[in-house]
Amino acid sequence: MNVPPPHPFDPLRPEEISRTSRIVRPHFGSQEPNFRVITLLEPPKKEMVSYLEQERMGQLVEPPTRYSRVEVSIKKDPSGTQLFELIVDLDKNSVVRKQHVEGKHSYIDTNFMKAVEEACLADEKVQAEIKTLKVPDGATVVVEPWAYATDGMNDMTDRVTMCWFYLRLLENPDANYYAYPLDICAEVSESLQVTKVYRLPITPEERIHTETRPFDRRRIHNTTKSEYHPDLRPSPRASTKPYQVVQPDGPSFQIDGNHLRWEKWDLRVGFNYREGLTLHDVRYDGRSLFYRLSLAEMFVPYGDPRSPYPRKAAFDLGNDGAGINANNLQLGCDCLGTIKYFDAYHNTPSGEPVKLPNVVCCHEQDDGILWKHTNFRTNNPVVARSRVLVLQTIITVSNYEYIFAWHFYQDASINYEVRATGILSTAPTSMDHKGGYPYGTVVAPGVLAPYHQHLFSLRIDPAIDGHENSLVVEESKSLPIDDPAVHNPFGVGYVTESQTIEEEGGFDLDFTKARTFKFINENKINPITGTPIGFKLIPFYSQMLLAHSDSFHAKRSEFAEHAVWITRHEDNDHFPAGKYTMQSSGGDGLASVIAKRRDTGVAQSVRNQDIVIWHTFGSTHNPRIEDWPVMPSEKLTVGLKPVNFFMGNPGLDVAPSTQETNKSVLYAGENEATACCDTGL
Amino acid sequence: MNVPPPHPFDPLRPEEISRTSRIVRPHFGSQEPNFRVITLLEPPKKEMVSYLEQERMGQLVEPPTRYSRVEVSIKKDPSGTQLFELIVDLDKNSVVRKQHVEGKHSYIDTNFMKAVEEACLADEKVQAEIKTLKVPDGATVVVEPWAYATDGMNDMTDRVTMCWFYLRLLENPDANYYAYPLDICAEVSESLQVTKVYRLPITPEERIHTETRPFDRRRIHNTTKSEYHPDLRPSPRASTKPYQVVQPDGPSFQIDGNHLRWEKWDLRVGFNYREGLTLHDVRYDGRSLFYRLSLAEMFVPYGDPRSPYPRKAAFDLGNDGAGINANNLQLGCDCLGTIKYFDAYHNTPSGEPVKLPNVVCCHEQDDGILWKHTNFRTNNPVVARSRVLVLQTIITVSNYEYIFAWHFYQDASINYEVRATGILSTAPTSMDHKGGYPYGTVVAPGVLAPYHQHLFSLRIDPAIDGHENSLVVEESKSLPIDDPAVHNPFGVGYVTESQTIEEEGGFDLDFTKARTFKFINENKINPITGTPIGFKLIPFYSQMLLAHSDSFHAKRSEFAEHAVWITRHEDNDHFPAGKYTMQSSGGDGLASVIAKRRDTGVAQSVRNQDIVIWHTFGSTHNPRIEDWPVMPSEKLTVGLKPVNFFMGNPGLDVAPSTQETNKSVLYAGENEATACCDTGL
Repeated sequence: MNVPPPHPFDPLRPEEISRTSRIVRPHFGSQEPNFRVITLLEPPKKEMVSYLEQERMGQLVEPPTRYSRVEVSIKKDPSGTQLFELIVDLDKNSVVRKQHVEGKHSYIDTNFMKAVEEACLADEKVQAEIKTLKVPDGATVVVEPWAYATDGMNDMTDRVTMCWFYLRLLENPDANYYAYPLDICAEVSESLQVTKVYRLPITPEERIHTETRPFDRRRIHNTTKSEYHPDLRPSPRASTKPYQVVQPDGPSFQIDGNHLRWEKWDLRVGFNYREGLTLHDVRYDGRSLFYRLSLAEMFVPYGDPRSPYPRKAAFDLGNDGAGINANNLQLGCDCLGTIKYFDAYHNTPSGEPVKLPNVVCCHEQDDGILWKHTNFRTNNPVVARSRVLVLQTIITVSNYEYIFAWHFYQDASINYEVRATGILSTAPTSMDHKGGYPYGTVVAPGVLAPYHQHLFSLRIDPAIDGHENSLVVEESKSLPIDDPAVHNPFGVGYVTESQTIEEEGGFDLDFTKARTFKFINENKINPITGTPIGFKLIPFYSQMLLAHSDSFHAKRSEFAEHAVWITRHEDNDHFPAGKYTMQSSGGDGLASVIAKRRDTGVAQSVRNQDIVIWHTFGSTHNPRIEDWPVMPSEKLTVGLKPVNFFMGNPGLDVAPSTQETNKSVLYAGENEATACCDTGL
Repeated sequence: MNVPPPHPFDPLRPEEISRTSRIVRPHFGSQEPNFRVITLLEPPKKEMVSYLEQERMGQLVEPPTRYSRVEVSIKKDPSGTQLFELIVDLDKNSVVRKQHVEGKHSYIDTNFMKAVEEACLADEKVQAEIKTLKVPDGATVVVEPWAYATDGMNDMTDRVTMCWFYLRLLENPDANYYAYPLDICAEVSESLQVTKVYRLPITPEERIHTETRPFDRRRIHNTTKSEYHPDLRPSPRASTKPYQVVQPDGPSFQIDGNHLRWEKWDLRVGFNYREGLTLHDVRYDGRSLFYRLSLAEMFVPYGDPRSPYPRKAAFDLGNDGAGINANNLQLGCDCLGTIKYFDAYHNTPSGEPVKLPNVVCCHEQDDGILWKHTNFRTNNPVVARSRVLVLQTIITVSNYEYIFAWHFYQDASINYEVRATGILSTAPTSMDHKGGYPYGTVVAPGVLAPYHQHLFSLRIDPAIDGHENSLVVEESKSLPIDDPAVHNPFGVGYVTESQTIEEEGGFDLDFTKARTFKFINENKINPITGTPIGFKLIPFYSQMLLAHSDSFHAKRSEFAEHAVWITRHEDNDHFPAGKYTMQSSGGDGLASVIAKRRDTGVAQSVRNQDIVIWHTFGSTHNPRIEDWPVMPSEKLTVGLKPVNFFMGNPGLDVAPSTQETNKSVLYAGENEATACCDTGL
């Protein structure tokens, strides 16, 4: 079969991955490269813009040079690793750049973490400490290694891994060991040495210490309270009757490789190890809306001030990778209806391709009513239902799950929905402590679920009918009642006031002013409204980072200071908390990049320029016991909506809803006769 | 058939409606009563609480006395109406109270409005004015009467009706006449006299005047831009393939009269002419959560300061009625799947029952993933899908539609979703005016869609495991870094701080502090968390009323000043903007009621009392052209979630999702072979 060449936005193909490693390997001589990343280096935007324009006009056009980006980790003597970044020209089969990235680490190495876990459990000091717990017979001590969140207490050069301890009380390997956090903690070095073993505080007043303490058997509780796996639970409720989605004529989407078309939408699906799902060249009805959309980073800092808990703070993209941790989605489990799955490819440490099956699913949903009107004079209703296209990916990061889904609507709006689910990260607490915790919730006997935040950075690269866009901040303001120059005789008038942002920076939300952030194209005026065409952000109102601005948490997660950021577009500038977040010490996030550009005098006007918008949102998650043992999805939704972009409701041409097509069924319950017809409601 | 007696929360039955009017009629002698309202007077809460307790224990118990509440309007000489309110004891068939409600009006009388419309069009001055328009042949002038929003310029005793003029250009009666607002305005009196005819301003600088001006034919535009009815539009898009919901074993709900049970939920469905759908005695797994839930009011003030537009401000519940304007929902149009419809009954002017068919629909939806976890050590995923029960009602208020839906989830949370759709209320604007409008959007040639707000008041009567509840305001706050008494060595700690509200009042939202409003039961402590059991409000962050606090808009819509209000429960206190909103002059809304109680020294502690919470939310709706000619649903969602109420995730026992039950289908597109398997994503 004749395979067409990849589109410039397509992720690397398996063959390109192995070719890249073959090209790179000789550059390390006798050293064995540990290939951490072999991924597409997206083409320069300038080249892509002209490529896409010609492609749209149906012209056969030479694609930009195809490059791969490589991260290689090399063992150094006596311990530690060196990180190299390489760029490979896949058209010329040559390395065009090789750079030693000093003092930085690649994202978390699962094999290394497994080695840490084993080394920790094999350590004599650790074993001695475990013995003092006197755990019940048959119970298994589980070690969960976490990347260390910089707190200024350690040399940053080598990796330090925090080992948290849990007890799996049941034999079944799916038993929920987070129900029995232990008060042992260990730190493991780059060379797999256990450097510290100590006991955790189990009251608000306690601090880390080295006194031993047996496992408190009063903590042992009924498995139904803490187990989620069906094998470990009583029979589930039987009341939920089957609910199936039938699409007799198939789905409304067409997919050709990574090119997706659905209901006037046209876009390309991308995927990489770090951001997971990415969207490219998003158009509606032939008009350009967004050059690229992606989740760019997320940060999960914990709020327990007691050492060593400030070291719990995860960059789930930079440290873990939303792509590499994406679930293999299963038919009938994660979606209903007719489903298209996309696979992705990552690489093995030796540079061979490895398939990540079913990492993205694509399906349709019904979303109730898109629009309705009944003419009260004729009593004729017209109603159109809302069909939604969903592109979904789900990641597991140790205990937590995140469900990321782009929703496309027929009215040309987009929602980005995050659902947080999975299991809370837990800490041990004393059964004898009364009076509660100011920074956590007790969710099971001896189990503290500490307060934490989830802070996401959504990267929006707008292309509102072109690539020269501006950001406008609009507010709705009451007219004054005492200004003789203002006509407001009854005190009810209000107007909008707009400010166009001129310089890169971060901004806050204010719903009390109906503050709205619009991405507009000042060069394109809507002929009816007389105003520039645009899209607006429907933000998710969230508390920003609670950690103090002097803390390492704050320095490392600069994007978490403001809800909306604007920067000038730069190629490969996808990192609102810096490119290398593992044990980062800060100073390379959004704020620093903006400040550096400002200080070096590089012109960074963002008005009528190629701009990028970053939306920080999330939740201050002070756990409820209802989040235990597995958390019901908490939804966070961000929207993008046209504002005077089109010439009217883009969903106006959706066919009115009919029973003939929808085939709904009238309920005829047992008591129907007396309920509805005879007695009324 | 032996019809069981009504439950005390059941709306009046048809027989009770006719019986009420028969009982009431003699009390007006020879005067012909115009029955505006014959509705259930809900029993006193004290009696109901003990009734419900005994009912739950399976005891046969005498229901509280059944009362109906009646509003009668009587014509007075020489013009005007008098309003009477009566309470009828349906057990004793007697009027127990008859009260003349001085200076107030009942809600909008559709028959009167029709008479106004006819009188307006028949008026010579109006006809003369219309003639000056020189409208195209075949076009029809349409008059749309609106209740007059008090502005202090008129005597408030009698009703004044504003008549707005439009042109229906096409013959088809479903043509969208809002596309051609005319610049004529008329005012019609209680005695159906046209008291004023004048011309509307069509530029920001213009004021009302009496110079004539012909209809500007440059405004006439292509019908596809402004028509929504399929008969007046080109063929709709054909790309949307059918999507059907199949429930082979039927729905998961059981309905007995108005008693609804679904997935551990248990509640009673109510309905009245004003609030529409109401919910009563809402329980989960046998435990009491809410005594009553309802939308209590909504206010839609317009922001155009130019006279007479300050008179555009609608109380869509108090003036129009969400019940009386509820749509007759149709199978396959407004919902999918297996649907139960509820009818309701209202009354004719002569006091006979009139059926309002299909005013509420009940059906299930799939809502994606309820919870998921993959054990990364065993790679075993467990995923449960989220099933939702939806109780939906849709109202048409002239141009606008509102879709109100209660969503019940398996994790014991509730969402209240409002969708705004329908047609924007429009005003004429000059084709020659350049420079835009500071308080409106031009959506079609010569058509201004003025800025306005939609402000809703959701009434929440909590019964969190009992009727003595408290409101707690919780905030998440960073710990100080410079207080030696506070342990926060790394500056990352944060805690929650709570304040229990002691007195009635209004409060604001603040997402920057993660401010959370919890309804708790201080008498019931969760044995695991050690904290009082509760529910929390997930508010919809919205700008409050923009009209000046001295304006009539503000005085009339006191609830629109703050996002969260707490009051002591009082029977029949369902009116956050006062009971009679038609041409109200203010001073009888939430703030006034609270102030009056405070001033008269009536003890109004709200801590550990029977309390009511009112949530004000809405949107500052500055129209987009995409809202034209019919607006894509704008969603506003409020949530109610348990917080340490249960002993764990209430949805933990939902059966894991399986392909066997869900019968999803794998997409096999034309290009599948090369897309996924050969080249990867």
